[in-house]
Amino acid sequence: MHVVVPFDGTDPLSRLDPVLTHAERRDFARACLEDVCGTIVATDHQPHILTTSELAVSWPTRVDDRPLTPAVNAILAERSAPVAVIMADLPLVEPGVIERFLDTPGDVVLAPGIGGGTNALISRHPEFRVDYHGASIRDHREQITRIDGEYEQVDSFRLATDIDEPADLAEVLLHGRGRAHEWLVKRGFMIVTTGGRVTVERDVREQ
Amino acid sequence: MHVVVPFDGTDPLSRLDPVLTHAERRDFARACLEDVCGTIVATDHQPHILTTSELAVSWPTRVDDRPLTPAVNAILAERSAPVAVIMADLPLVEPGVIERFLDTPGDVVLAPGIGGGTNALISRHPEFRVDYHGASIRDHREQITRIDGEYEQVDSFRLATDIDEPADLAEVLLHGRGRAHEWLVKRGFMIVTTGGRVTVERDVREQ
Repeated sequence: MHVVVPFDGTDPLSRLDPVLTHAERRDFARACLEDVCGTIVATDHQPHILTTSELAVSWPTRVDDRPLTPAVNAILAERSAPVAVIMADLPLVEPGVIERFLDTPGDVVLAPGIGGGTNALISRHPEFRVDYHGASIRDHREQITRIDGEYEQVDSFRLATDIDEPADLAEVLLHGRGRAHEWLVKRGFMIVTTGGRVTVERDVREQ
Repeated sequence: MHVVVPFDGTDPLSRLDPVLTHAERRDFARACLEDVCGTIVATDHQPHILTTSELAVSWPTRVDDRPLTPAVNAILAERSAPVAVIMADLPLVEPGVIERFLDTPGDVVLAPGIGGGTNALISRHPEFRVDYHGASIRDHREQITRIDGEYEQVDSFRLATDIDEPADLAEVLLHGRGRAHEWLVKRGFMIVTTGGRVTVERDVREQ
């Protein structure tokens, strides 16, 4: 399976702006990318990073400065064999989850993200194209039905948890085991419990 | 397996207060409870509802007006056979997810919720007790290690998605198929896409 990992090398994780500087966001995004790619390698697959700008990494890269949707669709249009697309901001993934995902049958396999996104997908249908705007999980399902395909959804909390908002950092602290987890701990982030769901606080003395 | 479904019959889903009246919250909580119990029945298990006040349902109930933690621990203390505890505010669950959960081995099986909660668990260890306060998933893991037990975590987006905040209603609209989904649609709730994750809006003309 050709496994693509899209990565925003320019202004990643912009909604973490309230808690991280621009340089920190780039650094943390890189830790997440390494967690995802390292996990893919652990399942004996090769990650191909689709990046908006040049990137010094040990995995093959393809630079495309267009938005995510046309950049991914260019790859889907080029290839006749199945393609998997796994987002770079999923630092909770573990080898067992990636294996379960890649082993799922179906013309198109969808792993929903919290809040309507599509955090990972496999296309085995020549006509399928992505559209990551808005409630993409719903739009992808509708498209697959239109092109007479069948989809399967993968039920995974680890694949659903993309890093979008500051509260998502709590999930990394609670459930992560890789570089992104270590990055947050080293910079003083810790869990704080409030009335409802937990969130994070940063001890600036540890920076 | 003895399957317990705790239910707040008094003031459920209080953090939905910004979008639902008290009567609506009770009604919606009841729809969620029926989705969860119906799904458990579909896996050939019997749900036992642990409720804070009398409830007219077709499943066996046990009334205990204490807070969730002591009420659940009373059941764990009484029983020597394994007990599963599945929260009532998980309207995305499907039979396959419940089966995967109930079939998971381990002294204690934990299904984490978004934001540090423990949305479902199985205890096969005589000393294990719940503590639902704060980051309970972390506290439960630590406790299991202290009592020389081993835990397994179940990786499920559907079990992780409890109904806590208004944005969670978007998940029910996108991924639910039962009464809770129908309840929201009938009352005019719909997905709205913004810059990041989707949320919900209500068309009051449909009320």
